[in-house]
Amino acid sequence: MIPVRILGTASVLPGPAVSTAELCARVGRDASEVERKTGIHTRHFAPPGTKAAEVAAQALRDALRAAALEPTALRRILCVSSMGGDVTTPATANRVAAALGLSGSCDAMDLSNACMGFLSAFDLAARSVATGLGPVGIVSVELLSRTTTPESPRPYLVLGDAAAAAVLGTGRAGEGVLGVALGNNGTLPPDVVLENPIATGKLERMHFLTPSQAMTRVALDALVGAAHAALDAAGVAMRDVEWVLTHQPNGRMLEAILDALGVAPERSVRVVDTVGSVGSASLGTSLDRLLRTRPVKPGHRILLVGVGAGVAHGAVLYRVGE
Amino acid sequence: MIPVRILGTASVLPGPAVSTAELCARVGRDASEVERKTGIHTRHFAPPGTKAAEVAAQALRDALRAAALEPTALRRILCVSSMGGDVTTPATANRVAAALGLSGSCDAMDLSNACMGFLSAFDLAARSVATGLGPVGIVSVELLSRTTTPESPRPYLVLGDAAAAAVLGTGRAGEGVLGVALGNNGTLPPDVVLENPIATGKLERMHFLTPSQAMTRVALDALVGAAHAALDAAGVAMRDVEWVLTHQPNGRMLEAILDALGVAPERSVRVVDTVGSVGSASLGTSLDRLLRTRPVKPGHRILLVGVGAGVAHGAVLYRVGE
Repeated sequence: MIPVRILGTASVLPGPAVSTAELCARVGRDASEVERKTGIHTRHFAPPGTKAAEVAAQALRDALRAAALEPTALRRILCVSSMGGDVTTPATANRVAAALGLSGSCDAMDLSNACMGFLSAFDLAARSVATGLGPVGIVSVELLSRTTTPESPRPYLVLGDAAAAAVLGTGRAGEGVLGVALGNNGTLPPDVVLENPIATGKLERMHFLTPSQAMTRVALDALVGAAHAALDAAGVAMRDVEWVLTHQPNGRMLEAILDALGVAPERSVRVVDTVGSVGSASLGTSLDRLLRTRPVKPGHRILLVGVGAGVAHGAVLYRVGE
Repeated sequence: MIPVRILGTASVLPGPAVSTAELCARVGRDASEVERKTGIHTRHFAPPGTKAAEVAAQALRDALRAAALEPTALRRILCVSSMGGDVTTPATANRVAAALGLSGSCDAMDLSNACMGFLSAFDLAARSVATGLGPVGIVSVELLSRTTTPESPRPYLVLGDAAAAAVLGTGRAGEGVLGVALGNNGTLPPDVVLENPIATGKLERMHFLTPSQAMTRVALDALVGAAHAALDAAGVAMRDVEWVLTHQPNGRMLEAILDALGVAPERSVRVVDTVGSVGSASLGTSLDRLLRTRPVKPGHRILLVGVGAGVAHGAVLYRVGE
């Protein structure tokens, strides 16, 4: 076990909610069909000029408040994004730290692993804490509305903006990561791609390549495999896990994942209907929602599991402390 | 101490060497003056079409060979860049893993913290290994020639392309990170900035803002402070450190750093003269050069120290094992 405690969480939806109906009107699509296919009714688009670092800092500030900690308590900030944040050099994380009033009392860096970035950061934060460096703040921030346009309806109709944060600190007895299984398979054909404009020399947008049925099956298998690997590492059966949080790219995929895992919806937390597809912020948003609105008790086990572009896949099994 | 062993290192300079004289001719500058000011005689520019992932994979493959390990031994790959690699989603690290023939046997993610990214990754890799997840491959890859043009001579005349890798695994007795001090101060005025085109909606280049003398002093103080914090954490005096590797943005800064630390050039490894300013790959390149060409012996201490945009600063003190 990696001893670590989730000290606090928070999530932020920047800007007003935008309905699927409103977006469908812009692109000439039938809203009821899109809602049925995606399970998304609203998402948020940050107003023009919004900085990723501001939204991330708000989420991290709220998570620190939930943890009853001052920002100066932090020893490390991991800022996660799958759209590159505000700035490539230096790391956007510097601006997050500065917005929290920090001036060198912790380190700060950017991290990306598509939709699995939050879990990657969670693992790195847990290992940092367990080796004496903590508390660690992790924050996923996605301004995915910057990556798409109405001319490309598939991403435009599902992507949204969000940030989610967690502060991890020293674990108490029996508390921490019971099992973890993370992996990436770059040999699989890509399904979601956002090229780096600095490398290509031209502006780039998010592309959803049409995955085959076979590819969806491969992704689902990778996710289920990761879930069972994390459970096996902990010697815990799925039926003994009280809460299962999954990456939620759309409503159908959420249902397919829960079905493949054999988990009833009551043991999970659906957020995709009101936040849309928010990349690496998806798991953090549902973790925050879980801890704020569900009867999570000491000793409960929370499985966080997902799959994303890469193909990245992974699962973390966490046990809640006293 | 964080027990960890540097199992192997490597560095790669993609494409042919380009002389300062050749670049100065293009931009109408006096080569001898530029060489005197920058200490840079040559750097490498990767040929058009070169992928960051290919160069990174070559460096990591060579580091694995130095470690006498197969790629399948790796449990984690941290791919570091301050120009965003090839692709923003998914992480470029997936392509590095795929180029090594890996298909899900390890996780892979991208990390950035300007010129300090290699040290950030080194720390995270060490903490991963110490908590049971290893070996970990870290690779910094910079195609900085993609971030500049002759129209902007200051970055154009100093930046170069490079990759450097290290493979970290389980430490033996007395071997590992004796002390570490990493920090970021986003409240200081920026000196090097590359905005994210996805966020700004336009193509971006690396900008060198003119730092004041005061700013250079602040950066140098941050670096010296980090060096002494890492040494103090280990209870080791600077005079007892056999090797000191520093970030090398240019020859003058290298000399100023060694001077401020009171370290004779013989205890360091100069690479900037032939590789140029290579961002996060600078420290990895000099680490590889040190281990391949200098009489490094068991028990020796190596201090890696640097400062970069952010302002990011940090130091890692490593003790070589038997």
